Amino acid sequence: MSHKVIFDTDPGVDDAMALYFALAHPEIDIVGITTTFGNVTVPQATANALYLTRIAGYEIPVAEGGALPLMKAPGKPPGFIHGDDGLGNLPSRVAVSGQAEAASAAEFIVNMARQFPGEITIVAVGPFINLGLALKLEPQLPKLIKQVILMAGTVVEPGNVSPVAEANVWNDPHSADLVFTAGWNLTMVGLDVTHRVVMQSAYFAQLAQHHQYHQQHLALTTLQHAVNFYSDFHLKARPELGHACYGHDILAFVYLVAPELFQTQDGRVRVQLEGMGNGQTMMDRLGGTLSYAEPGWEARRPETRVCLQVDTAQCLALIERTLEVNWLRAPLVV
Amino acid sequence: MSHKVIFDTDPGVDDAMALYFALAHPEIDIVGITTTFGNVTVPQATANALYLTRIAGYEIPVAEGGALPLMKAPGKPPGFIHGDDGLGNLPSRVAVSGQAEAASAAEFIVNMARQFPGEITIVAVGPFINLGLALKLEPQLPKLIKQVILMAGTVVEPGNVSPVAEANVWNDPHSADLVFTAGWNLTMVGLDVTHRVVMQSAYFAQLAQHHQYHQQHLALTTLQHAVNFYSDFHLKARPELGHACYGHDILAFVYLVAPELFQTQDGRVRVQLEGMGNGQTMMDRLGGTLSYAEPGWEARRPETRVCLQVDTAQCLALIERTLEVNWLRAPLVV
Repeated sequence: MSHKVIFDTDPGVDDAMALYFALAHPEIDIVGITTTFGNVTVPQATANALYLTRIAGYEIPVAEGGALPLMKAPGKPPGFIHGDDGLGNLPSRVAVSGQAEAASAAEFIVNMARQFPGEITIVAVGPFINLGLALKLEPQLPKLIKQVILMAGTVVEPGNVSPVAEANVWNDPHSADLVFTAGWNLTMVGLDVTHRVVMQSAYFAQLAQHHQYHQQHLALTTLQHAVNFYSDFHLKARPELGHACYGHDILAFVYLVAPELFQTQDGRVRVQLEGMGNGQTMMDRLGGTLSYAEPGWEARRPETRVCLQVDTAQCLALIERTLEVNWLRAPLVV
Repeated sequence: MSHKVIFDTDPGVDDAMALYFALAHPEIDIVGITTTFGNVTVPQATANALYLTRIAGYEIPVAEGGALPLMKAPGKPPGFIHGDDGLGNLPSRVAVSGQAEAASAAEFIVNMARQFPGEITIVAVGPFINLGLALKLEPQLPKLIKQVILMAGTVVEPGNVSPVAEANVWNDPHSADLVFTAGWNLTMVGLDVTHRVVMQSAYFAQLAQHHQYHQQHLALTTLQHAVNFYSDFHLKARPELGHACYGHDILAFVYLVAPELFQTQDGRVRVQLEGMGNGQTMMDRLGGTLSYAEPGWEARRPETRVCLQVDTAQCLALIERTLEVNWLRAPLVV
């Protein structure tokens, strides 16, 4: 069985890792990429999505998405984490063909959902402006979409933009709260599990080496360069990890193809929209046993499936097996 | 060595448990009680503080405190948890002598701090309006006070008034944030540890039985009645505990005399002041390793010593030993 996936992304180094995992995995069929601001501006995200797919040999449609958060003032992309270009400041790029779709990301999502009702999975790994806008364009969207998997938020694990908030949610908390309350088949893959999966930069050098005679070798040396930059940041922030980085976005695709590697709990998730906890995902882990005094928590639904633990070893083995054995399935078109 | 303690409290059933533990413990000298709204209104809290001390044979000064939160709209006391009278709806009360001090709670705290600089410990187990006001009356208070121990907040454990907030902080988040940023020797004893210490209602029946020939027997039957009511509530909310209740406030005094039973971590704690996460204590568990994008988290200090784990068995043993063996040390004055 193959999953028809729209990949909503702000590439971004871990977005690139996730994309290449998805392209390499035989059960994932990326039918479109929608871009968002976040790790980079949205025009840069679109350029990167086109570049990363084309140098890997894929002519996947790319639809450009929202440039700004729904209500929050926009921030500056974190060039010190992903590079100013989102891919670790690549020294050069080859020319690639193709341009973004005429439809915006939100329109693209709605069109695909109507065309393939009940078939589309959305894997969203950036701020959630496109899902927020799509929900406003088509209120029936949750019924048309098969499932939504978010790289988003945190429950028990500390945050990465504040002690309690994760970057994707924090960048556009109002869109995220729309997504968590929309009532679709929704899974949150957050820092509780992505911080358990650390990928060594040396692995990506070996991966590029392993595939050095493939025509898509440029894709893997590009990824290697990006991961090196990303790991430089992690080495400063979390020296105990070594020259390595968190898997983050790739985990959303791992959940898609191997949900059995995750321990999950269902519960309401809401987003803090103000104050020093801005952008925090707050999960009701006690379910129906308590009625809360704080207003807003009366409603019992909808619930989100939240990943709280992951089998790290199996997860890494799956990622490595996929990238080493299955790279690449597509005909070369660059 | 004896600890000179001002007990800031909103009795409240677990407040009564804490008070009787403190009175029974040979190393704790309660030099004053200050009252606050919370489990009950502040006049009821004052009446209860006078009643609980007098029926136990103690003429401890009681100073009435703030009736309202610093900025938040006041809520209704949770009569369904502690009883409308805060002590499980006692069927009758004996007459006791004594009345509240002329000074308000905040003035009482400041006066004692100036009279005994560096000697006073504050154990605060209700909403923190009195500490907030005292900090405004005497900005040097943090230097005059030996240490402050709060029953407050939560880090990893779910909240009890929302999925993320604990009641004492939530009742007056602005005062709590003043307390967490004042820069004194501060320990937070929150749900992370108080939810690990469950006290069976049957134990308090045995305790009253054990001391049935003491003149202060009325204190223990009063406590038994209150704990029964409190355990009825817990049985509905958390049936897996049996007819029992969380220790909550008593843990603040256990920390005072046996800090070695707790695992703690130092870190900044700030309080969420708005939205659905209102009243949450947010702890920076990663310390100096990350600089956060969310404004307000730049300042590195002051830090709070936060209790994250407790030795449940040793804690229960200490409580039971104290109540069974040392009850009561004072001459009877009722």
